[in-house]
Amino acid sequence: MKRDSAFRLHASPGKTPRPTRLALRVAYDGTAYRGWQVQPGAPTIQGELERVIETLIGVRVRVFGSGRTDTGVHAREQTAHVDLAFRPDGAALRRGFNALLQPDIRVLSARIARPEFHARFDAVGKEYRYFIWNADPVPPFLHRYRADIRKRMDLSAMRRAAALLIGKHDFAAFSANPNREVKGTVRTLCDCRVSRRGAEVVLAVRGDGFLYRMVRSLAGHLIRVGLGEIEPECTQTILTSRQRTARVPTAPARGLFLWKVYYGRMPDP
Amino acid sequence: MKRDSAFRLHASPGKTPRPTRLALRVAYDGTAYRGWQVQPGAPTIQGELERVIETLIGVRVRVFGSGRTDTGVHAREQTAHVDLAFRPDGAALRRGFNALLQPDIRVLSARIARPEFHARFDAVGKEYRYFIWNADPVPPFLHRYRADIRKRMDLSAMRRAAALLIGKHDFAAFSANPNREVKGTVRTLCDCRVSRRGAEVVLAVRGDGFLYRMVRSLAGHLIRVGLGEIEPECTQTILTSRQRTARVPTAPARGLFLWKVYYGRMPDP
Repeated sequence: MKRDSAFRLHASPGKTPRPTRLALRVAYDGTAYRGWQVQPGAPTIQGELERVIETLIGVRVRVFGSGRTDTGVHAREQTAHVDLAFRPDGAALRRGFNALLQPDIRVLSARIARPEFHARFDAVGKEYRYFIWNADPVPPFLHRYRADIRKRMDLSAMRRAAALLIGKHDFAAFSANPNREVKGTVRTLCDCRVSRRGAEVVLAVRGDGFLYRMVRSLAGHLIRVGLGEIEPECTQTILTSRQRTARVPTAPARGLFLWKVYYGRMPDP
Repeated sequence: MKRDSAFRLHASPGKTPRPTRLALRVAYDGTAYRGWQVQPGAPTIQGELERVIETLIGVRVRVFGSGRTDTGVHAREQTAHVDLAFRPDGAALRRGFNALLQPDIRVLSARIARPEFHARFDAVGKEYRYFIWNADPVPPFLHRYRADIRKRMDLSAMRRAAALLIGKHDFAAFSANPNREVKGTVRTLCDCRVSRRGAEVVLAVRGDGFLYRMVRSLAGHLIRVGLGEIEPECTQTILTSRQRTARVPTAPARGLFLWKVYYGRMPDP
């Protein structure tokens, strides 16, 4: 029997062992990066993670994110997965990552996941937050992380507009490039909340998916509403038009944070 | 009569008008600067303010701060004064400053002060805060502004040591260079408070004056106490010894903020 077992173990020497799938939670300050996705000759978050893995384990492997973030956009909690040929100690690997990464990218956790876990396809939704410093001046410690609007915004107008955006809609008017959306332009926004904390105005949006530059377009539009440049009731007209116009500017990247990626089930609004 | 007045106006053409003294409240991220004080060939906060004033009014004038801050040290609220040959609109000048300064230096206010107001000599005390991220990892948005200590610190030990530091003492053991102190090494620490908010430990100190690198020395010592490397009761012995030893390391600059400069009267502890 022992011989048989030994024989079976050696019977398929060419067969590679099943890889270990690792789920990573990553936070980053996007200021110095050309977004998430690897690009030749430009620093990117995905590129930095892959470079550090190569240094740690000697092999270049692909890191799959839940989705891309644009140049200058931050992440409080991005999720990614990666396959390794061995079964690592997640906590030790996390420390290794953080020792080699620049301090503007941090691996919050590295955990062994189900072999079929997929950071992008398993995501059921995402939350983004957009931060506006609604006073003058922006503190020097926050200028990388806040859009700045000096004139005090009318939050009740912004909330009326935000309420019209919640639900399942065709968001083509709030995408920077609706034609490139392979899955169409209909998405469900479960929550769209505007709040003020001192000088800060925060827009929190949660949905099953977001079009290209959709959150910055929603933020840009709601800022114009808050400044009284557009009536909140126009939001409905813009949404129905499915046409992007000047009433929907793109708010700056620096105010935007990918806040959380949801798997399994999204919390109720 | 009118002629007489006109004559008197022209009678002393060489006499310069009394200058207007301006009090500035300034916040800065010290990361990119070689401290407050002007140095040839190095970016400094004072140097940047003087450069911007020269651009705005065409004349190079000296900006007097309440005191220096070291390389990499931040200020939530530093105070300075400057003399101008004309009487400016403070609010407009503040906007002019902030339009020309890098976003890591902000003029919070520019107000016309009494002609005899002096940012350094009139200061009755200062508050500094030292921020420690007592967890792993430091969020990527805070790495410029926090010292990092992974091992959980014992706050009750730190508080026992901090209590021994309050009062009028010779702080020579907590200065990086006691010999350069022209006013001696005795200072009064009115308050020395240690608190925790989530992963963050904050040391707040308030006193009538601080020696060279005194706050970072106090922080370095209290961190060692918090880690259990020194008994809190040793603080008394160190203070009395008036000798700087390895038991008093200098904590990193990035955790330190000049929090407020007091004029007139300091608040009660």
